[in-house]
Amino acid sequence: MLRIGVLGCGRIGRMHAANIAAHPRTKLAAVYDVNRAAADEVAAMLGVSALASADAMFDTSDVDAVLIATATDTHVDYIERAVAAGKPVLCEKPIDLDLKRVDRCAANIRGTKLPIMIGFVRRFDPGHAAVRAAIHSGELGELHQVIITSRDPGMAPAAYIRVSGGIFRDMTIHDFDMARFMLGEEPVEVFATGSRLVDPGLMAETNDWDTVTVVLNTASGKQCIINNSRRAVYGYDQRVEAFGFAGMAISENRRAHEARLYAEGLTDRAQPYLHFFIERYREAFNAEIDDFVDAIESGRQPSVVFEDGRLALVLAEAAMKSVAERRVVRTSEIGGGNV
Amino acid sequence: MLRIGVLGCGRIGRMHAANIAAHPRTKLAAVYDVNRAAADEVAAMLGVSALASADAMFDTSDVDAVLIATATDTHVDYIERAVAAGKPVLCEKPIDLDLKRVDRCAANIRGTKLPIMIGFVRRFDPGHAAVRAAIHSGELGELHQVIITSRDPGMAPAAYIRVSGGIFRDMTIHDFDMARFMLGEEPVEVFATGSRLVDPGLMAETNDWDTVTVVLNTASGKQCIINNSRRAVYGYDQRVEAFGFAGMAISENRRAHEARLYAEGLTDRAQPYLHFFIERYREAFNAEIDDFVDAIESGRQPSVVFEDGRLALVLAEAAMKSVAERRVVRTSEIGGGNV
Amino acid sequence: MLRIGVLGCGRIGRMHAANIAAHPRTKLAAVYDVNRAAADEVAAMLGVSALASADAMFDTSDVDAVLIATATDTHVDYIERAVAAGKPVLCEKPIDLDLKRVDRCAANIRGTKLPIMIGFVRRFDPGHAAVRAAIHSGELGELHQVIITSRDPGMAPAAYIRVSGGIFRDMTIHDFDMARFMLGEEPVEVFATGSRLVDPGLMAETNDWDTVTVVLNTASGKQCIINNSRRAVYGYDQRVEAFGFAGMAISENRRAHEARLYAEGLTDRAQPYLHFFIERYREAFNAEIDDFVDAIESGRQPSVVFEDGRLALVLAEAAMKSVAERRVVRTSEIGGGNV
Amino acid sequence: MLRIGVLGCGRIGRMHAANIAAHPRTKLAAVYDVNRAAADEVAAMLGVSALASADAMFDTSDVDAVLIATATDTHVDYIERAVAAGKPVLCEKPIDLDLKRVDRCAANIRGTKLPIMIGFVRRFDPGHAAVRAAIHSGELGELHQVIITSRDPGMAPAAYIRVSGGIFRDMTIHDFDMARFMLGEEPVEVFATGSRLVDPGLMAETNDWDTVTVVLNTASGKQCIINNSRRAVYGYDQRVEAFGFAGMAISENRRAHEARLYAEGLTDRAQPYLHFFIERYREAFNAEIDDFVDAIESGRQPSVVFEDGRLALVLAEAAMKSVAERRVVRTSEIGGGNV
Repeated sequence: MLRIGVLGCGRIGRMHAANIAAHPRTKLAAVYDVNRAAADEVAAMLGVSALASADAMFDTSDVDAVLIATATDTHVDYIERAVAAGKPVLCEKPIDLDLKRVDRCAANIRGTKLPIMIGFVRRFDPGHAAVRAAIHSGELGELHQVIITSRDPGMAPAAYIRVSGGIFRDMTIHDFDMARFMLGEEPVEVFATGSRLVDPGLMAETNDWDTVTVVLNTASGKQCIINNSRRAVYGYDQRVEAFGFAGMAISENRRAHEARLYAEGLTDRAQPYLHFFIERYREAFNAEIDDFVDAIESGRQPSVVFEDGRLALVLAEAAMKSVAERRVVRTSEIGGGNV
Repeated sequence: MLRIGVLGCGRIGRMHAANIAAHPRTKLAAVYDVNRAAADEVAAMLGVSALASADAMFDTSDVDAVLIATATDTHVDYIERAVAAGKPVLCEKPIDLDLKRVDRCAANIRGTKLPIMIGFVRRFDPGHAAVRAAIHSGELGELHQVIITSRDPGMAPAAYIRVSGGIFRDMTIHDFDMARFMLGEEPVEVFATGSRLVDPGLMAETNDWDTVTVVLNTASGKQCIINNSRRAVYGYDQRVEAFGFAGMAISENRRAHEARLYAEGLTDRAQPYLHFFIERYREAFNAEIDDFVDAIESGRQPSVVFEDGRLALVLAEAAMKSVAERRVVRTSEIGGGNV
Repeated sequence: MLRIGVLGCGRIGRMHAANIAAHPRTKLAAVYDVNRAAADEVAAMLGVSALASADAMFDTSDVDAVLIATATDTHVDYIERAVAAGKPVLCEKPIDLDLKRVDRCAANIRGTKLPIMIGFVRRFDPGHAAVRAAIHSGELGELHQVIITSRDPGMAPAAYIRVSGGIFRDMTIHDFDMARFMLGEEPVEVFATGSRLVDPGLMAETNDWDTVTVVLNTASGKQCIINNSRRAVYGYDQRVEAFGFAGMAISENRRAHEARLYAEGLTDRAQPYLHFFIERYREAFNAEIDDFVDAIESGRQPSVVFEDGRLALVLAEAAMKSVAERRVVRTSEIGGGNV
Repeated sequence: MLRIGVLGCGRIGRMHAANIAAHPRTKLAAVYDVNRAAADEVAAMLGVSALASADAMFDTSDVDAVLIATATDTHVDYIERAVAAGKPVLCEKPIDLDLKRVDRCAANIRGTKLPIMIGFVRRFDPGHAAVRAAIHSGELGELHQVIITSRDPGMAPAAYIRVSGGIFRDMTIHDFDMARFMLGEEPVEVFATGSRLVDPGLMAETNDWDTVTVVLNTASGKQCIINNSRRAVYGYDQRVEAFGFAGMAISENRRAHEARLYAEGLTDRAQPYLHFFIERYREAFNAEIDDFVDAIESGRQPSVVFEDGRLALVLAEAAMKSVAERRVVRTSEIGGGNV
């Protein structure tokens, strides 16, 4: 049983802590949060101790590995301290909002053999993974287009939006990783457009966008379209379509059950989609932990590594520049392709 | 162009007349109805003459073949007159409500080489036909169960119900034929149960049932379930499921289009099913004409012959007896299997 | 945390033990199996003790309630001992193969206020429960027909078939309960037909059937069709259709994910259905535990009680008699409706 | 009965001629093609005369209206001659490959009250029309994103590609019109990217693209994504998704029938999509004729007018410029918004 300590007891940290506690291959070792009350609550619920400081987490020999789910601006520091302490890391996305800081961190941890995993959980979704398998098996022939639809059920709280780093680094970042996961080669050009349609006031205040479309191109001409919205009233909308010379695969949405209603004037009415990421990616979060444990046990790198986190951020920065300057941005302008 | 005359200008006769007029391989030669005004109306609309008598239809050399869509109790007489006149026949179901009369007709026309086709149009539905093809190709392995769901969108007019001969001979008759079409061997046992749930008053008055379930068994143990209702508020419900040792095929319902709605609390809401048989079996009615023309042109028998009409009626009589006597009825009690 | 002891460490017992161990509201107290090695293995895996006898389970104050998942012929005895020991019971289906023995048990435990729950887990499936909710809310209008499709992925081992009590008491028993759950009134007539199509040799040897169709009628004329097969190559097939005056609801099958493939000659190809009951009814098994805990905590009876187990068995016996005598059997002949 | 003459007897002209001949409200008056043999063949098949010249079509009083389905570079001339002759026009897309020529034509026919309809047939597809109705009814709330997927079943013949004017003016032109139809306001910015993946040799030779993605933005921030491919092995892929503040509507693909196959390792396998536009838009082609006839009979303009043809071409030119210059192009650069 791998003993994992969790840093950060916000929404996602609490979920990870509970998953780790229930996972057959891991044990929740301890939790920490800068907000002591939050840590205490999670600790009490899951029957572990809340540590008084992050240092305590890195220092103790009772923690084999750490999961970082704290505020984004602390990620880099904690990754570096974990590496210094010799503890494998599973870090939530994004690594940081500042690509330069990410590059410095990369330099600082260069050479480590410790597994450093970035939490792009969607790669572990069984449906998305099946689409990728269809690509990689050759079943779809040469890949031509990828279409990623990713819409949240509702606008995040204003307080969160204000510190999120903007939609591209907070939300689309998952889709940038999914694009790379599916395309199998790096995008070289990025075009993005953003609109303020869901909450124009908040978006204007934060200079952010709630409705975006991104087009990525690879050198060989593969095209990837991402569309995002901060609000989908029918539930969390998470689809991936891969279209190739010999066929197409689509990962469709999921529901809590498949009861269908037929009545006057309608047929086949189904439930809303699973509400949000905790429900939709439940199996994926567990598979992510499995991959992390496998990597540690077998001495291999995890399926999603630090550089994946960095390259998704390159695409996010390119998209931000594209929206700001209303032009196509080459990833080479940002730093894609070379660490 | 085969010149077809249509006897009967009620709802189904009018539809057939229009189809024949529009079909690339046929020409509507003339129409007749005992109600002269009905015939005149169809004739005017389609630009043909309304004949003064049925005899005129059989006597004229301008008519190559006849389609019989008159009241059920005239079918047998018209079939015999058509045979006497040397004209191929496409006759609507059922041949007659009285199996003895059907048997006498069979005796009277025995030996004719003329194509005599019975209008079990559903055999020509592309979806149902694909299910049968999957059975016959061996793709499903040995067939074990067939489930036929057949529900009308709404109760027929009381006047029609009173002369229909009861649900088994009027409505289930199509499903009995579908069962034989799918099973590929004759049912030997029939169990049926009927309820009065849609319009109990009318059903009690006519000693009829509006909601029925029938189970058919073949000698080799294949099971077929038919369920009927006179009312399905979500549209005409026409499904066939064939289940075998190696797989299953289902012919699902169809809609006028496939637009789907997603809103608060719901996903995937679709249109009602195509309203009724004219819409649902549009392609099938044309394919039926094609088969009839092919049979005439090539001198073969049509895909649905007189004996098919008779055997469906045997099953209907067995079902009526089963409901009345609340017991399993063997088709050999009715006259199945020998003309 | 309710401390539950599990009697029986076969396939279903092991699954229950693991679920109880992982469930947030329960604690696995101990396990027992007549096969000591089986009990030891489960005990070791889940970190509890394997008791040396069933008596030990009933005697200890460390066990608040028991789950009975032993061989069917021990159920009645264990239920009675649990009641004597004052411990609530969750007992797997069927209560017993012999209705008389069930009746004696009912007499023996009459008057107990202890929760005695029978494991008809499918009532807790979210999809099936949604169909029932649509019935009970009035959304479907008066209920007319229920169609239950229940097919296992493959034939059970011969050793199991030989002691199962036959398909009606082993497999269809779940569907009989589902029928009662949906119909909301007791069936008064049963017609059943059985065939030997999947493994004719084994079926002949055991005088059993692998392919069955059952029709149930209620006094008000509601019709329920059950179709079963011991083999569905495309996965565990579990559907419930409820059809009423104002609409229809269908609980459809589920898959591990919803990736769909489109290639030359085909569209929309999906995964097989979830393999078997452990996968398909995973949420339902947990919800069943929740209901059991709720009942104990609140002093109410569980949602599925002893009499439900008895009435399902009445329907199974009626079906067996119907197949044997090839006739419609009234449940009053068997003992339905009066304990 | 409106007497329509058809100019052009290629694939689409032949289809229109047959539709007009079979349509209950129209009569095929005559046909013409610069290739006399092609015209003769169609004329013989449909029982009309093949005229010796286009002039004959415009001069005769036996033709009430004309349908132009000739080579694209003749459209403008024929439109002007039809207007001069006082005959309403239904002209296939695109009006011309040269926007300046279209503008001159607009100037030449300015002031005419004659119905001039452009053949953007997809507006009449029942599924697409239902999506638009959901937008216009307010059911979806404010519209945010439109996603149009449009993929041909296979690469057109090289000879056709060489004269088609390129994918944007030949194929995407339909999607540009669909975008305008759905958006309800004019796009002001166009970004397009093109790849050569299906037939790189032919595409390089013709300086064309076989795989394109286009993003359109309106002034209010509505986003529209179009993705095209010249090859979809699973059939003609025609989907429209409209996503708004209060919901989403999707027009899905259609098949010849809805039989589904379930076998070892798979469920729900369906037929390929309807092969190509003749099958997919069969109802739409007839509804287009209905709209044309309605417009003529009631003295109103058709639902798709000359300016719609022109504005779709503006978007095509903007897309071509965007691909060529790898930048966002404003429609005002091309001439959108002012005739």
